[in-house]
Amino acid sequence: MFEQHRETLEKALSAIAERGYWSAYPESPSPRVYGEGAAERGKEAFESYLGKPFPLDQPGTGSWIGAERSPYGIDLGVTYPQPLVDDLIAAAEAALPAWRDAGPEARALACVEIVDRINRRSFELANAVQHTTGQAFVMAFQAGGPHAQDRALEAVAYGYAAMTSSAASARWEKPAKGEPLVMDKRFTVVPRGVALVIGCNTFPTWNAYPGLFASLVTGNPVIVKPHPRAVLPLAITVLIAREVLAEAGFDPGLVSLAVEEGQGLARTLATHPAVRVVDFTGSTEFGDWLERNARQALVHTEKAGVNTIVVDSTDSWRGMLGNLAFSLSLYSGQMCTAPQNLLVPAGGIETDEGHKSFEEVCAGLAGAVGRLLGDDARAVELTGAIVNPDVLARVEAAPSLGEVVLESRAVKHPAFPDAVVRTPVIVKVSPDDSEVYGREHFGPIAFVIPMGSAQESLEVLRRTPQARGALTAAVYSTSAEVLDQAERAALDAGVNLSCNLTGGVFVNQSAAFSDYHGTGANPAATASLTDPGYVAGRFHIVQTRRPA
Amino acid sequence: MFEQHRETLEKALSAIAERGYWSAYPESPSPRVYGEGAAERGKEAFESYLGKPFPLDQPGTGSWIGAERSPYGIDLGVTYPQPLVDDLIAAAEAALPAWRDAGPEARALACVEIVDRINRRSFELANAVQHTTGQAFVMAFQAGGPHAQDRALEAVAYGYAAMTSSAASARWEKPAKGEPLVMDKRFTVVPRGVALVIGCNTFPTWNAYPGLFASLVTGNPVIVKPHPRAVLPLAITVLIAREVLAEAGFDPGLVSLAVEEGQGLARTLATHPAVRVVDFTGSTEFGDWLERNARQALVHTEKAGVNTIVVDSTDSWRGMLGNLAFSLSLYSGQMCTAPQNLLVPAGGIETDEGHKSFEEVCAGLAGAVGRLLGDDARAVELTGAIVNPDVLARVEAAPSLGEVVLESRAVKHPAFPDAVVRTPVIVKVSPDDSEVYGREHFGPIAFVIPMGSAQESLEVLRRTPQARGALTAAVYSTSAEVLDQAERAALDAGVNLSCNLTGGVFVNQSAAFSDYHGTGANPAATASLTDPGYVAGRFHIVQTRRPA
Repeated sequence: MFEQHRETLEKALSAIAERGYWSAYPESPSPRVYGEGAAERGKEAFESYLGKPFPLDQPGTGSWIGAERSPYGIDLGVTYPQPLVDDLIAAAEAALPAWRDAGPEARALACVEIVDRINRRSFELANAVQHTTGQAFVMAFQAGGPHAQDRALEAVAYGYAAMTSSAASARWEKPAKGEPLVMDKRFTVVPRGVALVIGCNTFPTWNAYPGLFASLVTGNPVIVKPHPRAVLPLAITVLIAREVLAEAGFDPGLVSLAVEEGQGLARTLATHPAVRVVDFTGSTEFGDWLERNARQALVHTEKAGVNTIVVDSTDSWRGMLGNLAFSLSLYSGQMCTAPQNLLVPAGGIETDEGHKSFEEVCAGLAGAVGRLLGDDARAVELTGAIVNPDVLARVEAAPSLGEVVLESRAVKHPAFPDAVVRTPVIVKVSPDDSEVYGREHFGPIAFVIPMGSAQESLEVLRRTPQARGALTAAVYSTSAEVLDQAERAALDAGVNLSCNLTGGVFVNQSAAFSDYHGTGANPAATASLTDPGYVAGRFHIVQTRRPA
Repeated sequence: MFEQHRETLEKALSAIAERGYWSAYPESPSPRVYGEGAAERGKEAFESYLGKPFPLDQPGTGSWIGAERSPYGIDLGVTYPQPLVDDLIAAAEAALPAWRDAGPEARALACVEIVDRINRRSFELANAVQHTTGQAFVMAFQAGGPHAQDRALEAVAYGYAAMTSSAASARWEKPAKGEPLVMDKRFTVVPRGVALVIGCNTFPTWNAYPGLFASLVTGNPVIVKPHPRAVLPLAITVLIAREVLAEAGFDPGLVSLAVEEGQGLARTLATHPAVRVVDFTGSTEFGDWLERNARQALVHTEKAGVNTIVVDSTDSWRGMLGNLAFSLSLYSGQMCTAPQNLLVPAGGIETDEGHKSFEEVCAGLAGAVGRLLGDDARAVELTGAIVNPDVLARVEAAPSLGEVVLESRAVKHPAFPDAVVRTPVIVKVSPDDSEVYGREHFGPIAFVIPMGSAQESLEVLRRTPQARGALTAAVYSTSAEVLDQAERAALDAGVNLSCNLTGGVFVNQSAAFSDYHGTGANPAATASLTDPGYVAGRFHIVQTRRPA
């Protein structure tokens, strides 16, 4: 079954080895790509869920719960089955042996079919992502749709590559006195057990798919526990996965949804003795709790980080400002990869438009953000809405942290009057205020920090990720020496570094099949979302041998 | 440098993919293989260490300590530098960047040179292993020498394969409106940090080499902390590694030795914030402690297990008895892979020599062991000596656990009058005595258990590894159905299974490059010594990208 996906799998395997540009799922929401009427049908499909019980049929269903409210000001009114944990886990365990016995190839091809079918419902998912995360529609389509699907396929490929890197059987023939010793051996991939994926509020699909598919392809049944504010995108995902698995003759109990309204379900699930893998994206506090307490499981976490940009010099003043303004504004900085700290020499920088003082850099940046977000109707298509009250509170408190370089502005959304939209606030703080800029202020909040020298900036770049975690870092410099030093600092810090981004590539975006997301080498994450360390622990190899 | 090892590395990479028969280092101690006089020179080299400070020059040396006593009754009198922990760690950290920057290939080739040079000193190491573990000489040569060296090379190959499975650099070219977006990317392997290897008493080299070389090849400096009773083999290993690294222009601080006389050093090292990888072989109690407490590190443990053999029927009664007798006798059962529980139908078994009652199976086994070890001079070459007083105490206590089928016999070693040598004790216990046979009795102690049926035996085979851990399991049956059921039970139990061993392959032996040692799928070990899960977490990938 699903033989038709072999070519996609092969291409994905080449892509993860080569890590150049490749994408399986087009990111353009154009009707030329996804077909006439696809957008409208996706919107209708989304709307058909609203105000109703979600059509998910899984065992262990208690009452129906759910209280999602769109950051654009709409109550979704979708309800989901409240799980009976032991029933879900029993269903997962019962489904495991046949899925294990199907082997790596059948599992990988079935996973590709799931991703493919998710892709065909990208518009439906885009609406669901938009109205749970507050992302603008195009971003919700791209990041929540094809980009997430590429990451899913990438995880399938990494899992498949790891499982098949050694032979599944071998004849062993050892020379010996008299007759050689000959044994036939079989090496079977066995999963760790039941896996749990704990989703986040801001990127419910993008951040959940790698763990979901890495666990599933390696043979583990997966329980998906979405963030209570962002259930729908993962409910649709689980629905599709169960459909495909059932069609392929597997037990749909391999993938199930565990929804809660309050708190505590993630703890219960993550510490259940049968749960052997946990993937989590969210707060450092809960990630640390999981690492400490889910001792029976392999735990992968992505937590908070403080992302640093070193500004030393540039040969494209306008390109740099435009690029930074975009990175600060995109989804109102509500990305784990968004830059927070801009380290600028107090004495200013050299540019292609001459020397710019520290104040001119600040003003240039403020002006670039202002221009980018000057028109409300266009601004909201970039910023989206503020995802939750905590982010809003931080934006409002930010001016008290230092000297305001750019005030945050409340933007009226032309289509959604109750949407909470805010442009970035930029605050100048002293290099001595490390208790301020040394921690994450998740949301549209950036700090500009006047540094004594590029060397001092690089020292902060080297130190911050190890102390506080970081998912991204960047440097602007025309000096080959400074760039090399920045690269060495990034290696020591264990953080991915972008150099001199002045065009259409942004520090907060990572491309599947080429860019690693996270490293595992600093406290922000235990592994990259896609590297051998992310997949290898999810399965074991059990051997049998018989005389030939 | 070390270009000459490229072919060995390539062959090792093929071998880990194919997992058929391959060995880089000949296991025969014959002069035709290792050269005339090699044995004598090795013995002299070993003897030159006795009664003296070991010639190891490393920073952070306090006083000189050491109290190894050979199980053959000789005080070794070698002393070693007592480490100043912070100095050793500082030396390791200082050595890290250049080793990281050398890259996977240079590290892998240097590691092969280390293993190669270890191989050339196999006789010296064999004497050291013999007189710290109590292994008989030939076994000390093979298991402590070439077999351990093959495992080391295997770990190098796994590490190298994992590090190089994706490109080290790439050009990313994304189609875009107007000009394509083009970025040059570099992907650098960075190690986790300082690694610690905690050696065991019985297989100081074989069990330490995989962790040592897996960590080293992936860029981590390694501190080797031997068992206080088995220091010398690892001291020689560290000496060789430091020599090679220094010759290659690296800081020898990359590998160092941490010796103690008492207890506590392993805890101090394993919980040091700079130590990021821990490999341990030894007791379940301390392994569990490490997993609970060394939270800053990736911890791989190999702990106790209860190895089960299901006897259902055989087409080679004599072959089976001879094979089992050998497995029980080899190194007096002081192997984590030695069988402990023999599950035999109470109603007896069918064989090529007719039906054998349960009592006949017991008697057959006792007779086979008795014949194998009947001659003292030959017996000691198989059993070696008892490694420590704990094992001796268990052997002496074993008769009280049930009905003795075969008594242990004290054997006088013809060459070493003070050696403590014991043959295996076999005790019949009831299937209800799971509190007796359900735990590990490390040493020459086996239980024969009369079972109601093969199905009951298979149920114990399925249950025991998950409950108590297991490194090996075996089954004897002429029924294809029983063999298939046993294989399924082994998959569920997560234990490696050997079927119908009646010749020169033994359940307690695993061949490098073909057999996996441990699985990670049951509590006896967190990973196989050689699979992707064992190496992948030891390094991360850090990316930098620049516009092309």
